[in-house]
Amino acid sequence: MAKNFKELLSKVSECSKKTLAVACAQDQAVLEAVKEANERGIASSILVGDEEKIREIAASINMDLSDFKIINVVDTVEASLAAVKLVHDGEADMYLKGLLDTKTFLKSVLDKEVGLRTDKTLSHVCVFECEGIDRLLFLTDVAFLPYPTLEDKVAIINNTVEIAHACGIECPKVAGMAAVEVVNPKMKETVEAFELSKMQDEGKITGCIVDGPLSMDCALYPHACEEKGCLDRKVPGNADILLFPDIQAGNLVYKTFVHLVPSKNGNILTGTKAPVILTSRADSCEVKVNSIALAAVVAEKLK
Amino acid sequence: MAKNFKELLSKVSECSKKTLAVACAQDQAVLEAVKEANERGIASSILVGDEEKIREIAASINMDLSDFKIINVVDTVEASLAAVKLVHDGEADMYLKGLLDTKTFLKSVLDKEVGLRTDKTLSHVCVFECEGIDRLLFLTDVAFLPYPTLEDKVAIINNTVEIAHACGIECPKVAGMAAVEVVNPKMKETVEAFELSKMQDEGKITGCIVDGPLSMDCALYPHACEEKGCLDRKVPGNADILLFPDIQAGNLVYKTFVHLVPSKNGNILTGTKAPVILTSRADSCEVKVNSIALAAVVAEKLK
Repeated sequence: MAKNFKELLSKVSECSKKTLAVACAQDQAVLEAVKEANERGIASSILVGDEEKIREIAASINMDLSDFKIINVVDTVEASLAAVKLVHDGEADMYLKGLLDTKTFLKSVLDKEVGLRTDKTLSHVCVFECEGIDRLLFLTDVAFLPYPTLEDKVAIINNTVEIAHACGIECPKVAGMAAVEVVNPKMKETVEAFELSKMQDEGKITGCIVDGPLSMDCALYPHACEEKGCLDRKVPGNADILLFPDIQAGNLVYKTFVHLVPSKNGNILTGTKAPVILTSRADSCEVKVNSIALAAVVAEKLK
Repeated sequence: MAKNFKELLSKVSECSKKTLAVACAQDQAVLEAVKEANERGIASSILVGDEEKIREIAASINMDLSDFKIINVVDTVEASLAAVKLVHDGEADMYLKGLLDTKTFLKSVLDKEVGLRTDKTLSHVCVFECEGIDRLLFLTDVAFLPYPTLEDKVAIINNTVEIAHACGIECPKVAGMAAVEVVNPKMKETVEAFELSKMQDEGKITGCIVDGPLSMDCALYPHACEEKGCLDRKVPGNADILLFPDIQAGNLVYKTFVHLVPSKNGNILTGTKAPVILTSRADSCEVKVNSIALAAVVAEKLK
């Protein structure tokens, strides 16, 4: 069970080396990340995109391209479709966004012929290692689904539990997050979190334990549960997966974690046939490498 | 202008010493906080409550009660009304919650005869000093109003701007927080944040600059605004007041700040005739003392 990114990386080293298909690889930050992922044995990459620009950028960062396969496709849409097809056809194990807008990238992911669509709802998970927390935290959905319905939330839980399983967490604890840890009929978020908890009791959600509503302190700290008299909860301060009521709460907490909490993170899109990495330009090289590592353990599990 | 709690405390020392009325003071954490506030010259206190218990607890923590006026009222409701009346009548400058439930305490605050009600909407603000941020951050409303309307949000801004002014921040920058920094018609929170920004442009909100929607990174960091091409915003990464769309987002971020961000905080209720301190049992002595200091500078301003 990976409790931090160091352990996740050592888990990767136990897997066969994975191959990453990169859409529009002509981007310095992306090339730096795939270079590091290659050097550290996490994944090799097939670089799809503008070969001339890729070679130019690689030269400027002293990157030896002899280890990398390059497929020259200059057009952005065509490059994304060519890259995703590599994953679709099994020539690569995971798919990384390069220098193209998120909309075009997602279109390739969802392409009916060469994409990675399944019958599952797509969702996003960001995995954090935080100072003071002795386990990985899976924050979801903080970037993709704006206002998930109850049904969407079940899908998000199922997607995220699969990721947690891949990280070696056998029975992840899911916390339905809210402002308070008791059901308040005037707060629909608390009612819905409790619904999800009941669904797990009834066997409609499996492979995990779901509890809710839980406030941030009660989800993370047993001592907070003790102070508030709720140590008898199903998830008494030991949540692995933090399920947010909507994207406003999720994203605001997520960016607080990224910018203000001493932490490391990596993130992937879930519910796809193979792991998809949708990091943003603002993400550091470390975040991109952590995301590739996360994708690698998920790819191993999906095999 | 106070940029951290040290500067806020030195601001307090420039004010005349304030008097705190405590409702149901028979609580160890509360007595420790008022003892420290007294010793540090922040405020003296009138302790209303069960005198026998107050003396018992004081003895157990070696607290010399000769500096404190004690008013013996054993009944909780009566004690709260007696304590709030001291503030209502001008015998004390601010009002602190002791060992009683929030509902009873708030009932005394809102009491028509002896309470501290004004025609303003009540709201709550939590003030943070965070590592890596060179100014105080005012998070609101994270604990009191569950789903503020646009009108409520105007009231929250006005209440909080008054607190920021009291802390010496002449023209506080208010960020209407959301998951994204651009208006998305499908996200009502972003539309409402933009509405508030327009209202400030039109002079309907004064004494501050309001911008929105802003994501957490764009509200806090000029470099994030630069990367996202929005350095021309009214609040380009230098927000003082973070206005949350609702209590789910606000409270989840607030508790992340408290528990995971290296930080100090203090909080008060606003919109009342005099500052009201509504700290919870879980708050540390430091939080309570910071809150008393914050209340003291506000009381000085309201004089």
